[in-house]
Amino acid sequence: MSFNSKELQHKIDNKTKPPGSLGRLEEIALKVGAIQESLNPKINQPHILVFAGDHGIAASGLVNPYPQAVTAQMVLNFIRGGAAINVFCRQHHIQLCVVDAGVNADFENISSGQFIPAKIGYGTKNYMDEPAMSEQEVKSALEKGKEIISLIYAKGCNCVGFGEMGIGNTSAAALIMSVITRFPIEQCVGKGTGVNSEQMEIKIKTLQKVYEKHIAAITHNNSAIELLRTFGGFEIAMMAGAYIEASKRKMVIVVDGFIGTSALMIANKITPGVIDHCIFAHTSEEKGHEKMLHNLDAKPLLNLQMRLGEGTGAALAIPLIQSAVNFVEEMASFETAGVTNKE
Amino acid sequence: MSFNSKELQHKIDNKTKPPGSLGRLEEIALKVGAIQESLNPKINQPHILVFAGDHGIAASGLVNPYPQAVTAQMVLNFIRGGAAINVFCRQHHIQLCVVDAGVNADFENISSGQFIPAKIGYGTKNYMDEPAMSEQEVKSALEKGKEIISLIYAKGCNCVGFGEMGIGNTSAAALIMSVITRFPIEQCVGKGTGVNSEQMEIKIKTLQKVYEKHIAAITHNNSAIELLRTFGGFEIAMMAGAYIEASKRKMVIVVDGFIGTSALMIANKITPGVIDHCIFAHTSEEKGHEKMLHNLDAKPLLNLQMRLGEGTGAALAIPLIQSAVNFVEEMASFETAGVTNKE
Repeated sequence: MSFNSKELQHKIDNKTKPPGSLGRLEEIALKVGAIQESLNPKINQPHILVFAGDHGIAASGLVNPYPQAVTAQMVLNFIRGGAAINVFCRQHHIQLCVVDAGVNADFENISSGQFIPAKIGYGTKNYMDEPAMSEQEVKSALEKGKEIISLIYAKGCNCVGFGEMGIGNTSAAALIMSVITRFPIEQCVGKGTGVNSEQMEIKIKTLQKVYEKHIAAITHNNSAIELLRTFGGFEIAMMAGAYIEASKRKMVIVVDGFIGTSALMIANKITPGVIDHCIFAHTSEEKGHEKMLHNLDAKPLLNLQMRLGEGTGAALAIPLIQSAVNFVEEMASFETAGVTNKE
Repeated sequence: MSFNSKELQHKIDNKTKPPGSLGRLEEIALKVGAIQESLNPKINQPHILVFAGDHGIAASGLVNPYPQAVTAQMVLNFIRGGAAINVFCRQHHIQLCVVDAGVNADFENISSGQFIPAKIGYGTKNYMDEPAMSEQEVKSALEKGKEIISLIYAKGCNCVGFGEMGIGNTSAAALIMSVITRFPIEQCVGKGTGVNSEQMEIKIKTLQKVYEKHIAAITHNNSAIELLRTFGGFEIAMMAGAYIEASKRKMVIVVDGFIGTSALMIANKITPGVIDHCIFAHTSEEKGHEKMLHNLDAKPLLNLQMRLGEGTGAALAIPLIQSAVNFVEEMASFETAGVTNKE
């Protein structure tokens, strides 16, 4: 029997509450039902995957106030449990995995089950000079992303949020956004981890030059893969592969942040329809994100003015998705509770 | 030693994240710190109290699509665990108490520890004819609200959210709002549990008449107590007492919904400064709430387009407040994590 959203709507309307009064939670319950093709939507073993990768441009210091070494330092911080995403995942019993998609450092003797080594390379190349990745690297990153999803799916997970860490990666995301949405680059560039206004001007000028250098080749090829190859990074490519596999597996995908949304744009170009499996977590304070979301017709559940990345918005939104399926599962109906319905 | 918010800000800024990147969670951490006068803010044993009461006007059927009997039916639903607020409190380990502030029914043989009998009367009088409450009833309700807070405070609770249930209580809240904010009544009246547009017109006309009948006496007295006495209800008065006591006890108060916010307006008139202990949970879809919040200069954490009451917004916001204190408590600092700070 195929899923009928009207049946789920009917079930929701019979719960002891005025129709529609749970607002967006009702919309989310219907969405999860549609993804799972079930009148009994469930969230099982939610995971957040944080993909980490380094960017060649970061060495230039032109786009990022923190040095490249911070990517690797933060990966260790994730593994030790000291970052914001660790705190929020612990609070909500979300399983956190940290993926080395291409950090410019070796992680040796890491015995944590939370760490997934999947290094494609020691950081991408600097797209000021040449494309960030080779075709083989793009392919490997996409495949690895798919493999990782298959792994957590096999463990019983049906809901996954993506986060990222990579000094310089707001620049890659802005370039991807500019090409896909056709907004000029200066409307896509934001402060990232916190450049000041002088640094911001340099960031914009640098990325304008990068855009001009590569746009002809990208337009000529007109493929999302080529776009991804040109600007990187490894973590964005791996995330794109993960989105594609998660949608194939009918998982609920929780989209968060500027970089994560840019990876979704790529994934949805490669495999149209991926976005139908997505719930948007949080509108970032990163300047371009609101425009990006508008372009995707996406309305995130939260706006807490955060701009940290790591999947922190996803970790705070997953409990709301859980609340949506819980009310469908657990609330009494007018009949069972003996409550008089509206005339 | 007195609390210095700059010290807490410094602690927050040393966490492994760009400054300000946790957005409103940082603001909430500072707020909880200020309320508790502590550099180590904590949320202990959060409670939600749902105050239930009946309104004389409900019998007229002019303002509410559901019959008055639904208040008592929903109280039983809360006690049995079948309402939305039960689901969300279970999910987040929030202790839920249901208070009979003045429901027009007897609750006998209720052995649940979640149920607090505190009945002031069997529903208020109909303010179309006469003031909803006597002076003694207002006084008793305020006192009872204070007592209940003292009770949960003694159990170790330092964070409380308020919800309500009472067929017809959006009308009382709209009348209170109109008098305090001076917005005309038609701008304060919303659809409540879901009147249609014809019923809405009747609701507005009815409440305009009620307003005109009583406004001279209220203005003459110029007291929040008289305003409360005139329009009720028992649950709003008891909630006002609870707000006052909770602020006195330096508890974190989670304000939710149109009726809950109207009770806060009363409480803050009786005891100015109560609002400094409040965190606002959710912007209701009930029409007047946004204006009411604007009047209080309040910015809720969530907007999920809900309009159910019961404290459901508070139950969904308390985990965010918990996240705010958790990151202060648990995140590593740049020094301890060996992460390079910005130049």
